[in-house]
Amino acid sequence: MKGFFKVQTPEQLYKKIDRFKPLSSEKIGIEETLHRVLSEDIPSPINLPEFPRSTVDGFALKAKDTYGTSEKNPAILRMIGEIPMGQVSDIEVKDGEAVKVATGGMVPKGADAVEMLEYTEWVDSHTLHAFKPISPLENVIQVGEDVKAGEVVLHRGHLTRPQDIGLMAGIGKTEVHVFLRPKVAVISSGDEIVPIENVPKPGEIRDINRYTIVSMVEEIGGIPFFLGIAKDRFDDLKEKIELGLKDTDMVVITGGSSVGTLDLTGEVLQTFPETEILGHGVSIRPGKPTLLADVNGKPFLGLPGHPVSAMVIFHFFGKPILKILSGLSSDVVWHQIKIKAKAARNIPSVPGREDYVRVKLEEREGTFWAHPIFGKSGAISNLVRANGLIRIGINEEGLEEGEEAEVILL
Amino acid sequence: MKGFFKVQTPEQLYKKIDRFKPLSSEKIGIEETLHRVLSEDIPSPINLPEFPRSTVDGFALKAKDTYGTSEKNPAILRMIGEIPMGQVSDIEVKDGEAVKVATGGMVPKGADAVEMLEYTEWVDSHTLHAFKPISPLENVIQVGEDVKAGEVVLHRGHLTRPQDIGLMAGIGKTEVHVFLRPKVAVISSGDEIVPIENVPKPGEIRDINRYTIVSMVEEIGGIPFFLGIAKDRFDDLKEKIELGLKDTDMVVITGGSSVGTLDLTGEVLQTFPETEILGHGVSIRPGKPTLLADVNGKPFLGLPGHPVSAMVIFHFFGKPILKILSGLSSDVVWHQIKIKAKAARNIPSVPGREDYVRVKLEEREGTFWAHPIFGKSGAISNLVRANGLIRIGINEEGLEEGEEAEVILL
Repeated sequence: MKGFFKVQTPEQLYKKIDRFKPLSSEKIGIEETLHRVLSEDIPSPINLPEFPRSTVDGFALKAKDTYGTSEKNPAILRMIGEIPMGQVSDIEVKDGEAVKVATGGMVPKGADAVEMLEYTEWVDSHTLHAFKPISPLENVIQVGEDVKAGEVVLHRGHLTRPQDIGLMAGIGKTEVHVFLRPKVAVISSGDEIVPIENVPKPGEIRDINRYTIVSMVEEIGGIPFFLGIAKDRFDDLKEKIELGLKDTDMVVITGGSSVGTLDLTGEVLQTFPETEILGHGVSIRPGKPTLLADVNGKPFLGLPGHPVSAMVIFHFFGKPILKILSGLSSDVVWHQIKIKAKAARNIPSVPGREDYVRVKLEEREGTFWAHPIFGKSGAISNLVRANGLIRIGINEEGLEEGEEAEVILL
Repeated sequence: MKGFFKVQTPEQLYKKIDRFKPLSSEKIGIEETLHRVLSEDIPSPINLPEFPRSTVDGFALKAKDTYGTSEKNPAILRMIGEIPMGQVSDIEVKDGEAVKVATGGMVPKGADAVEMLEYTEWVDSHTLHAFKPISPLENVIQVGEDVKAGEVVLHRGHLTRPQDIGLMAGIGKTEVHVFLRPKVAVISSGDEIVPIENVPKPGEIRDINRYTIVSMVEEIGGIPFFLGIAKDRFDDLKEKIELGLKDTDMVVITGGSSVGTLDLTGEVLQTFPETEILGHGVSIRPGKPTLLADVNGKPFLGLPGHPVSAMVIFHFFGKPILKILSGLSSDVVWHQIKIKAKAARNIPSVPGREDYVRVKLEEREGTFWAHPIFGKSGAISNLVRANGLIRIGINEEGLEEGEEAEVILL
């Protein structure tokens, strides 16, 4: 395969990710849906609220009875009852009458507004003074004002937040269809990689990538399965990749940072039917050696062996793929929380690749300043010191001190 | 209790939260530590890397052999071997010699730099031309350059991210002490509140708060226990609160949006020994009726019954308390991801309280614009339409169109 593929820009490779499709769905109770993705539109079967409700503690009345009133010239109202919370009443309010209601309580027939407690005064146990003019509908939520019956309140492809679960509860939706969480096979590779329990012999290194990639899969809502450390041999790579393709929805392998190992991985992939190599190398730093393939509809991502490069590439390519498999709508897939920050000192870069420099953000008087953390890409401690990646565009030579750029939060 | 407590500003109430203390800790495998809080400092027992490593594919040599070279005038080097990945070697590089190394591989004794593959050319199977001058240490990570033995790499109070787990893996830390996740009793209250499976009778409403608050507790790393819906009666409230205080680390009750019910809750709390009411009412909107207490060291938070108000108050008070119980360092507890946005239209407010207006953010050419979503606080659908809360300070009368303010992301 060597030489067959040219290094691509991140944008060229991003476009090729759109081919992957969401997984199928399952039905679960809404209490389990936090951070899951809806696979159905949710129309409300009911109006919310279902009855007119007061937004304050006070007295339901006809607004026109308050017109022209003041503290010196109050309306005189006859108290005809109280509607306790959780109860409904047939009371009908007529001219000059009032009914006591609590916040959230029902506003009775005939009444079109609620005068707040603080603008009233008892005269005797049946008579009330109200001294603030209010308009019709003031302090009242009308039937269907929050949600109208039939209205789609949540859409397919939406990632559920606490308020979304609350809304489903409010309309009596107890179960809902969501996309399955993607199962992801994670494989480490490299003759020098050993399990972390081992004391590495000289020349060996502990398997950091297993832990970072598995955690990143979890963080984005996937279910990781670690399949072990593959030696840099065709048969060992093939066995683990085959297992991953059989049992999971996506395979991620780290290692093979040298051209030769990536080629070997590419050769293994070619033995599976309907494999299409989408990319082999991307002009992004850190992370250039990247292998992206479509194996009969399943995404395969080969990441560099250096822990920092592996994390950066997984962030830019692994996460969007997982989001697509999870069923997220495409506007969300490509959305990341970015903030603007100013370079706290000059940050050099080489044009021709998108450069992501690790930075530590500091907030001073409402402005974020990005302090670059320079270091070789193998140094995981630098990624621990960092809390963001500042972007230097593919055609830029770097940032000058004080220059503003986008920062992706880590 | 009525009248005993004055409405406080958010800052006054925030200060009273600092009294709560982190829970005790447990020892777990590092693969389980994502988003947990470390309860110990972690010093590295080793140097990282433990041997000098190459950061590129190339040839280890003495840098001085490359001085003054060019394509026309290359250094002529004698190849004395190769160090495969994962292996160690006793080879010593002398003047005029080179050893082939892969990225991440060991740099042998005698060599002080690595010439990249692309700047070399084979002459014959034992002889190499190298034509780019490099300096000592170029393309080499030295012993301890990433992490020095004895250095504290992660601190007590740190929330673990994937890269932190990676670093622990790298130094061979397989198990670690973390703070226990706080158990939180969640109680709904109100005579009008019914389980969501029920078809509410007129006057009744479904228990939205159970779902939003339970989800918010989960989102922040707590373990929620829903204890049911309490009627607005002393004995029912007391039974549920007592159970919560016995079995969990924090009790959150929603409902009691009317002054009377909050007072009843306060009376129940006074029956427990060593109860101190810290606040009863806070000048924040939505959410004014808030009850914060310390019951023998355990936090108790009474939230308004309106779903939107309950969520906003839980965001501002419940989350920081849970973060403190979780052992997070105090600089993290008070840190929120805020961005700056401009008001897309005038947003009025009343001075004397901190106002959080629900907004939908839109990004236009790198600037965020906040579109206010007006609506009564009972309307949960507005919180579903929103993705942020824009802050209007306690002494401000609102924001003018185009004026910039802080937005908290929802």
